[in-house]
Amino acid sequence: MKQYDLATFAAALDARRQPWYGNYYAMYSSLLDGVVTDPALMLLPLDDHLVHRGDGVFDTGKCVEGGLYNFEAHLDRLMRSAAAIGITWPGGRDEILRLTHETIRIAGRRNCSVRVILARGPGGFGVSPYESPRPALYIVVYALGRPFMELHPEGAVARRSLIPCKPSEMAAIKNCNYLPNVLMKRESVDWGVDFVVGFDPDGHMTEGPTENVGIVTRGGELLFPRLENILAGTTMLRLIELARTRVADGVLSGVAHRDITEQDIREAAEMLIVGTTLNLVAVREYEGQPVGTGRPGPVYHCLGSMLEEDTRTNAALRVQLL
Amino acid sequence: MKQYDLATFAAALDARRQPWYGNYYAMYSSLLDGVVTDPALMLLPLDDHLVHRGDGVFDTGKCVEGGLYNFEAHLDRLMRSAAAIGITWPGGRDEILRLTHETIRIAGRRNCSVRVILARGPGGFGVSPYESPRPALYIVVYALGRPFMELHPEGAVARRSLIPCKPSEMAAIKNCNYLPNVLMKRESVDWGVDFVVGFDPDGHMTEGPTENVGIVTRGGELLFPRLENILAGTTMLRLIELARTRVADGVLSGVAHRDITEQDIREAAEMLIVGTTLNLVAVREYEGQPVGTGRPGPVYHCLGSMLEEDTRTNAALRVQLL
Repeated sequence: MKQYDLATFAAALDARRQPWYGNYYAMYSSLLDGVVTDPALMLLPLDDHLVHRGDGVFDTGKCVEGGLYNFEAHLDRLMRSAAAIGITWPGGRDEILRLTHETIRIAGRRNCSVRVILARGPGGFGVSPYESPRPALYIVVYALGRPFMELHPEGAVARRSLIPCKPSEMAAIKNCNYLPNVLMKRESVDWGVDFVVGFDPDGHMTEGPTENVGIVTRGGELLFPRLENILAGTTMLRLIELARTRVADGVLSGVAHRDITEQDIREAAEMLIVGTTLNLVAVREYEGQPVGTGRPGPVYHCLGSMLEEDTRTNAALRVQLL
Repeated sequence: MKQYDLATFAAALDARRQPWYGNYYAMYSSLLDGVVTDPALMLLPLDDHLVHRGDGVFDTGKCVEGGLYNFEAHLDRLMRSAAAIGITWPGGRDEILRLTHETIRIAGRRNCSVRVILARGPGGFGVSPYESPRPALYIVVYALGRPFMELHPEGAVARRSLIPCKPSEMAAIKNCNYLPNVLMKRESVDWGVDFVVGFDPDGHMTEGPTENVGIVTRGGELLFPRLENILAGTTMLRLIELARTRVADGVLSGVAHRDITEQDIREAAEMLIVGTTLNLVAVREYEGQPVGTGRPGPVYHCLGSMLEEDTRTNAALRVQLL
């Protein structure tokens, strides 16, 4: 068996580069108090409880044309998630924001995703969070995927997930226990569909593995599930703000959170999926049946344009970094 | 902001050693196809889906006086857990066993814990398991904690956890989504008790954060919860085998899996906690009330000795490595 030490470790990393490293731009680690841009060095200790217990929280934002979009909302949620499981970052929210900006600047990419992970930190292989004397912060800047509808302008195909939904206490905290979400995503790939959607034991729609899902009723109401059972997506919440401005001019008759059943989907005019990376997606088919006309509808077109415009131009929600 | 590259990375790791590194003996990583014994090098890539999604499974065995105990049971469970979430190790079970033995031999410690983690592997920051072209295997050998009762011969104090139990589908797979377990362990520390015990919504006892829990009725029956709701602990299963041999000679009147309520605990003669690291623990107080006589009882003493003896001498369950 080969053994590596401090003198030979870097060469071993260098020799085992992965084909996808071109997608990784920069990583900050509080354990180094510094940044690496070489993907081979984007490492963390095995004894961080994030690794062996999923004991950490995260949030993912995006930079579009050099502007970091709606990141305060992501950071607020990160801090809420951390507080919910008892992780406190000693430098506070402002330091995380500053480090995120610096890491993006070092990455030097005008279009990128940024993932901030606040972890319980290194300190043994037990389950107790008190093993770790201080949390660890990792910030990674990587390639931003293309919005779904650019690749599939005809819209998406969705099905009902068979994976049991998370307990609501866990669903509302954006933590690194994503195995149910992983298994949902796996269903969608295995079934050859674009998305799957979860339901709670009462038959109410919850969410997709990494996105929120809503419908537009034939009466023109935009509906999303009640927030108790789902992660409150930052882009969904912003979409709702934008949508409210279109009630006055009659594009929509209303906007609300409400229990949504499969019957509601079957009777809907449109079904929409929304997420930070995805932007807005129109679902054309659900469980083998066309949704509404089976084509992206007018509410999708209206809100999709508004959201894209907002991402590129809303000065109040953008920090121009590059 | 400091930046590190291949030339400066090892020195940065060397400069930031943690006080607990003396507890870490060796780590195998399939990504290096080799072993490190320097704890500063016990690292893995941030893009392993284990890290950012909790997408992996694990099991933990122990080596006592150079003998790896009951490890086939741990390895069987690891392979079942991996299969349940669709991770297949290309080298198969036998290769994992061989690598585990080699890593322990390199660690060179006659008493140690060994954690085997089978991870989805590196390959991007998305949620899809198909991003990772192949799984990663990490094996870490580290200090074995002293059995609880050696430190606290008077027995343990336990309380009821307030953390909602996992969906049973997830509880039965030993995966790295351990945040509910982390929060349970946190309760026990915050409350100043030794252990907390979970209950399902029907009021039936489930398990502790990393251990199984059972009772001895006043009629002499050893009871553990039904296996549907809990992780089937290897040491609990072995304890049950040992206990069955004591029905004939009258130490116990029976051994069974059954729904256990808090009322059953209040009426119990003994309450027992069992785990691989802990061995067997007698609970002397539950929710502020003495259990039975409030002292470790005869079934604890009998089965605790049998389990310890089994760990040290059972040739069929031990592989002598060192």
